[in-house]
Amino acid sequence: MQKNDKLNITIIGAGNVATVFASKFLRAGHHIDAIWSNNPEHAAILANQCHAQILKSLSELPSTSDIVLIAIKDESILEVVEKISNCNAILIHTAGSVEMQVLSAASKKTGVFYPLQSIRKEIPVSENIPLLIDGSSEEVLLQIKNLALSVSNLVKISGDEERLKLHLAAVFVSNFTNHLYHLTYEWCEQEQLSYELLLPLIREVANRQTGEAPSDWQTGPASRGDLQTIDKHLVLLKENPFMQALYRMMSEDLLARMQKKDELRTHNILS
Amino acid sequence: MQKNDKLNITIIGAGNVATVFASKFLRAGHHIDAIWSNNPEHAAILANQCHAQILKSLSELPSTSDIVLIAIKDESILEVVEKISNCNAILIHTAGSVEMQVLSAASKKTGVFYPLQSIRKEIPVSENIPLLIDGSSEEVLLQIKNLALSVSNLVKISGDEERLKLHLAAVFVSNFTNHLYHLTYEWCEQEQLSYELLLPLIREVANRQTGEAPSDWQTGPASRGDLQTIDKHLVLLKENPFMQALYRMMSEDLLARMQKKDELRTHNILS
Repeated sequence: MQKNDKLNITIIGAGNVATVFASKFLRAGHHIDAIWSNNPEHAAILANQCHAQILKSLSELPSTSDIVLIAIKDESILEVVEKISNCNAILIHTAGSVEMQVLSAASKKTGVFYPLQSIRKEIPVSENIPLLIDGSSEEVLLQIKNLALSVSNLVKISGDEERLKLHLAAVFVSNFTNHLYHLTYEWCEQEQLSYELLLPLIREVANRQTGEAPSDWQTGPASRGDLQTIDKHLVLLKENPFMQALYRMMSEDLLARMQKKDELRTHNILS
Repeated sequence: MQKNDKLNITIIGAGNVATVFASKFLRAGHHIDAIWSNNPEHAAILANQCHAQILKSLSELPSTSDIVLIAIKDESILEVVEKISNCNAILIHTAGSVEMQVLSAASKKTGVFYPLQSIRKEIPVSENIPLLIDGSSEEVLLQIKNLALSVSNLVKISGDEERLKLHLAAVFVSNFTNHLYHLTYEWCEQEQLSYELLLPLIREVANRQTGEAPSDWQTGPASRGDLQTIDKHLVLLKENPFMQALYRMMSEDLLARMQKKDELRTHNILS
């Protein structure tokens, strides 16, 4: 990154995404002008960490800022945009499910900078964070691209629709997966089993994913049509109706796929 | 491991578990006497890999074997046990959901050696494989424990009931997680999205698990009560009824938990 690519950035928000990217921007040589949060304590903590001012009002954005990054909950963006005035900077949000266009009420130059990653400020993300970016003009997009490339080497230009779809995909592989872990954690607590014994298995299944069809690596009772074991498991879950319903649903889908594969195999032999 | 702890082992089965443990046993200094499989080609391949004989009949087990390890599908174990005769060795199976006692029709000395891991012979498992073991007597259990410790440092004595319950837990964190990945993979194919962009996220969510409650790391629309985004996602899934039903089910459970947490928080403030 060249010296003249260093940007002055104001961050709206002081949560997980704001905190993690503030630190990444600083490391990449950018300057954080100011931090705003609806929680003044959180704003003070993050402003202190990155030697920035605390922004008192959204109608008094620093005139020095090239970029104003809104990193708050998706559902609060509209409300914040309504409070912004006199914004000459590029106004960007970090949301998967919000259209870029909602920002145009507050700035002529708008964009998106969406991290396709589950970000918690307590846990350093060791890997590159894939960034889906967009911009309201070629020129704006180029500046956002430069910012994105200064903190990640996985940068993809993506419009509203594609971003929303990838956000949905992320919910399945991240939020729902994490919830499967949590349901299992609770089951282990209830049955006095060691959840920790499952950690190597959890890591193995995730780390073996390479982009090929995950069904190639499927194992377990449903994938081999083992109805006896499935029945034994369903009996064990009789006091846990939610887990039992989920077990039944997933296993039925896996069994149906297995049968379909078997039929195809038989058909190939016969034809 | 001392020299006199080296064991002679016959393996019944030539699939994923048989192949991976045959190689681990050899590396630990044990000797593989013979391999049997109902698929003679598979038996020949594995026997060749570990310089063992091919066993023609289950009624002619090598008299030299200390251990006979049955590593086949859970639902085929009973059938194989019925064919075994003249077994003086310790007879062990590797199944999560089968009682140890089914082996006692074929040998006086029986045990269990259950790997709590998703094992595919094509993929080397880099980590230690947790082993849940059992034995029909103290003496037998000690021998199985020595064998287990020679190939893993995560060994736990576990009876039929605990093993079945941990097997169920493994189905959730491994098979169902993998199926979530696969459903997402198919969705990406259908919508022409890059599934590979999701790989850092998949790894991050799994690798941050440390044994603490996974709900501590939950992110996403349902965990923050973002009903607008949930609605947008459900609309996107209108042509995928299975994924839509799953999305609704998981999100409702996450939302209910969030509301409960909020109520508890309010209650704490009020009381």
